[in-house]
Amino acid sequence: MIILGVDPGLTRCGVGVIEAGVHRRLSFIHVDVVRSSPDLSQDLRLLAIYNGLVEKIERFAPDTVSIERVFAQDNRNTVLGTAQAAGMAMLAAAQRGIPVALHTPTEAKLAITGNGHAQKVQIERMVTRMLNLTKMPTPADAADALALAICHALRPAGALQGGEREQHLTTAQRQWAEAAQRSAHRRRISADRGM
Amino acid sequence: MIILGVDPGLTRCGVGVIEAGVHRRLSFIHVDVVRSSPDLSQDLRLLAIYNGLVEKIERFAPDTVSIERVFAQDNRNTVLGTAQAAGMAMLAAAQRGIPVALHTPTEAKLAITGNGHAQKVQIERMVTRMLNLTKMPTPADAADALALAICHALRPAGALQGGEREQHLTTAQRQWAEAAQRSAHRRRISADRGM
Repeated sequence: MIILGVDPGLTRCGVGVIEAGVHRRLSFIHVDVVRSSPDLSQDLRLLAIYNGLVEKIERFAPDTVSIERVFAQDNRNTVLGTAQAAGMAMLAAAQRGIPVALHTPTEAKLAITGNGHAQKVQIERMVTRMLNLTKMPTPADAADALALAICHALRPAGALQGGEREQHLTTAQRQWAEAAQRSAHRRRISADRGM
Repeated sequence: MIILGVDPGLTRCGVGVIEAGVHRRLSFIHVDVVRSSPDLSQDLRLLAIYNGLVEKIERFAPDTVSIERVFAQDNRNTVLGTAQAAGMAMLAAAQRGIPVALHTPTEAKLAITGNGHAQKVQIERMVTRMLNLTKMPTPADAADALALAICHALRPAGALQGGEREQHLTTAQRQWAEAAQRSAHRRRISADRGM
């Protein structure tokens, strides 16, 4: 299963591609950043991000696109551009019939380090180790996109179904499942509000 | 000159099309709402909005797409979906080389009623009168999309250039120009911040 992770941004949009094999064996495929120049108008910036993401999706033909969920209370100066970049990734996937998964930064941190408040450097180290890389992926900030792909690959089977499977989970997996459930709950509330 | 106005939204996205002729003579062409079901996942909702907007843009071949500018401090429950819907309109226009103009609700209200704080019903009445319609456009909430198109058609020639032309403007036009300049200033600040 090929998973393409997207760390959305208007100036820098991280893309990380991995393969998740049997027994959740992970392999690194690709990491890059799609950029748009702040000198362009907003519509041309979105077009640049969209075109860059389409190129990656068509090249790696992922089974799932895993995108960081954006929240309205995120950094006010950039949140709308970030949400719109995430929208470009969602559209590019939906147009090709590829399922989209949204994961929160907390879910990604928990899945990778077992700690929902892990520091950036811990994430980068764990991503490097989990993908058997000899050095940190570059550009460094694209590690977040790989983390989102890994997060989706490692999601507990019972994460969104809840219930009986959870007794077999490790502490980290259980925390992850709880975070995913809280997020799903929030998602339902948002959907009810017409978001 | 054909102008297609977009009042962005994820559940209801208003579309209004007008023609602005010589002496700023305005004619009504089309008004409608593009919808997406709240039962769909976010990616499929964005795809529905995008496809609906593409259909309108290809059908009416506008010279400009005029979209309501979204602000991060807008309604927190819907602002991200609204920004993403606006992003779909920007992308659909940019892919076809059609210029995009962003106008704030205050600019639209000022352009149409001379009052930046005008009520919804005043906007609807003025839109009806300016387009020589015999009754209010339906669906009623699509009047905002027509207002955005009219706002772009009536923008003062010196609005964004500022300076010497403004002495010839009416009070309403001067207020509009000032609002546009404040918005352009905010836009430059946002661009500097990498939005």
